Amino acid sequence: MLNFALHMPTKIIFGKGEVLKSGEIVCEYGKKALIVTGRSSTKKTGVLDKVIASLKQAGVDSVVFNRIEPNPRAETVDEAGHIARENHCDVIVGLGGGSAMDAAKAIATVAVSGLPIHEYIRGNFTGKWRELLPIQKALPIVTIPTLAATGSEADGGAVITNLKTKEKSGINGPALSPKAAILDPELTYTVPANYTADGAVDMFTHLYEGYFTGDEHANVQDEITEGLMRNAVRFAKLAINKPNDYEARAHLLWTSTLALIGIANAGREGSYPVHAMEHTISAHYDISHGRGLAILAPAYFRLVIQTDRPHRLARLGRRVFDIAIEDDMQAADATIVAVVNWFKEIGAYDTLKNVGVKKEDLKMMADETIRVGGLGKNSLAGTHPLTSDEIFGICNAVYE
Amino acid sequence: MLNFALHMPTKIIFGKGEVLKSGEIVCEYGKKALIVTGRSSTKKTGVLDKVIASLKQAGVDSVVFNRIEPNPRAETVDEAGHIARENHCDVIVGLGGGSAMDAAKAIATVAVSGLPIHEYIRGNFTGKWRELLPIQKALPIVTIPTLAATGSEADGGAVITNLKTKEKSGINGPALSPKAAILDPELTYTVPANYTADGAVDMFTHLYEGYFTGDEHANVQDEITEGLMRNAVRFAKLAINKPNDYEARAHLLWTSTLALIGIANAGREGSYPVHAMEHTISAHYDISHGRGLAILAPAYFRLVIQTDRPHRLARLGRRVFDIAIEDDMQAADATIVAVVNWFKEIGAYDTLKNVGVKKEDLKMMADETIRVGGLGKNSLAGTHPLTSDEIFGICNAVYE
Repeated sequence: MLNFALHMPTKIIFGKGEVLKSGEIVCEYGKKALIVTGRSSTKKTGVLDKVIASLKQAGVDSVVFNRIEPNPRAETVDEAGHIARENHCDVIVGLGGGSAMDAAKAIATVAVSGLPIHEYIRGNFTGKWRELLPIQKALPIVTIPTLAATGSEADGGAVITNLKTKEKSGINGPALSPKAAILDPELTYTVPANYTADGAVDMFTHLYEGYFTGDEHANVQDEITEGLMRNAVRFAKLAINKPNDYEARAHLLWTSTLALIGIANAGREGSYPVHAMEHTISAHYDISHGRGLAILAPAYFRLVIQTDRPHRLARLGRRVFDIAIEDDMQAADATIVAVVNWFKEIGAYDTLKNVGVKKEDLKMMADETIRVGGLGKNSLAGTHPLTSDEIFGICNAVYE
Repeated sequence: MLNFALHMPTKIIFGKGEVLKSGEIVCEYGKKALIVTGRSSTKKTGVLDKVIASLKQAGVDSVVFNRIEPNPRAETVDEAGHIARENHCDVIVGLGGGSAMDAAKAIATVAVSGLPIHEYIRGNFTGKWRELLPIQKALPIVTIPTLAATGSEADGGAVITNLKTKEKSGINGPALSPKAAILDPELTYTVPANYTADGAVDMFTHLYEGYFTGDEHANVQDEITEGLMRNAVRFAKLAINKPNDYEARAHLLWTSTLALIGIANAGREGSYPVHAMEHTISAHYDISHGRGLAILAPAYFRLVIQTDRPHRLARLGRRVFDIAIEDDMQAADATIVAVVNWFKEIGAYDTLKNVGVKKEDLKMMADETIRVGGLGKNSLAGTHPLTSDEIFGICNAVYE
């Protein structure tokens, strides 16, 4: 087990109906909230109005910024940050999926500093991110997820896309850890099957990335990771078959939070190469992050992990998919099949071609992954430093 | 899954040699520390001097209070609290096992309020605990465990013994959550086999209590619990066989912390009847807490859990001890045997008679458990409200 520092400061308020406590929770941190949300779904489902009413009842005024797009964009963040400043907002509420919550964190940063968010984005070489990260100052943030996926509700990171430069990359820092996260599983009843599936793939990916790339002598972490994976696999199927199944939604939501809160990876310190590759795809093609991850996984497993650490793929298969094969290489094969079958079962299996990626873009996107995710090096950091050629190979393998 | 609120504010600094960071960590919270520790072992091993030197280097003065006894006593806490006040200490460092860390939390409370700690102790009917708990004000606390056992390093509770009234019971509150916990597994190399074993039993008990008594639809929590139990079982054996095995000590220490940090029981809300029973024994006979827990477990499993929830005992056995029996009652039987065998293997198996308990005291101790732990009711709270007669039955069954 590697040395680590771990801080999980976000207060978790979890359960049925807890969204009605929004006001009493938010009022601990401010008197005027900017509610950051997407264009329509939180309005349509009524949750936005519930939050506004709860805040009002607790004496918290609110301004709504409802123009966060999927893969939230730098210019949108900047605009909302200035609205927060003009309106003297002193707390930011991120209401929605990972996009709304990530945007809320970025907006909380811009609202304090007045700097454009692209200055902070890791990998943007015209920016000041080397000085500005980790972010120490931001308005207090409260998250209210309406989708079980990104784990953004209780971690200290966010991913923002600069569409002009086609850069999608991260910001992080202690100031981005939400003060509180209100996790009400009932808010996720209305999530359609495809987003439920993509969300499950996202949490599954958060879990396997560290598991495959990190220190291999962190058994507590590995067993927690495997347990969370089993829950993601099992409850995604249930939630898709029965969208109003409270236990399924509750388990998915809590799994998504725990997958990224820190306990799975602390002491293992794995890297996130599949995320880095996917960010390039969604920066260029604006697809669902979880779907992009599902597309890349089989080839990454086959071309990288099965070569480097087949025993880890085998262990995952045995412990998450009940594979009973003793030989590691054969078990690793069976694991890849099992993961693909799970993707197919929940409707997350896909190809780059099918989501609209042009074949002639693959080489460029591999290079872009290194340019943005390589942080100045000619490979992605990690136990297996992926090169542009390898990324190109992975993309090719899952093209159609 | 039940609704829950969860806050894990303690900063964790984990790893080899991290004790040398004591100064830079403690100086974030104060300039004059009371170091709370036991009579001899931290002096003998040199860790006390290391901590003092590290604090000094970071500009933190320290006063040492080195008279914490096992099952820390109310009068000792009061005395140390007054020493902290007289010396204008502004931060408390708990260095040692659960006793030193629990005492540190209680001392941090007394140092602020000046009230005797017995006023705060739950179940003391002459005290003001109903008004005073949860504790909102205390000096900042930093814990440095030298034993993997109680999980006190990163939770918001403490157990204190009033020897005059033979009451051993808890205090709790957000102010008792340590600001930081420095978890250096190398500090536990010198823990002798019997305390290593008792510590493993303590963490195992923290895990099974909620697992057996809490909500049964919290599968994420159950799987995390099972994973942590597997680690406790496996690494206790390794650490006892090879006391300087870093990975074994690291896994035991991190398991002990995670067992009580909140994630295992949040959403399940189990109760702690075996702890309540054991507290009576160690209040009267001053035995090791973990040893008392090991003594009680087999009869509690047999007389309570195998009747109420045999399927849970069976599940634990299948998932922690690889029991491959389909019938729940038979699997539950096999689980009890497996737990007892593990206790025997690590040297934790014992009887009340063997640790010096008088047979004629059993009825009195059963009544005392209800008086102190029943909080005014004639049974212990929980899904199975244990009566004095049942507790007497359990004690009798494990007498010899």
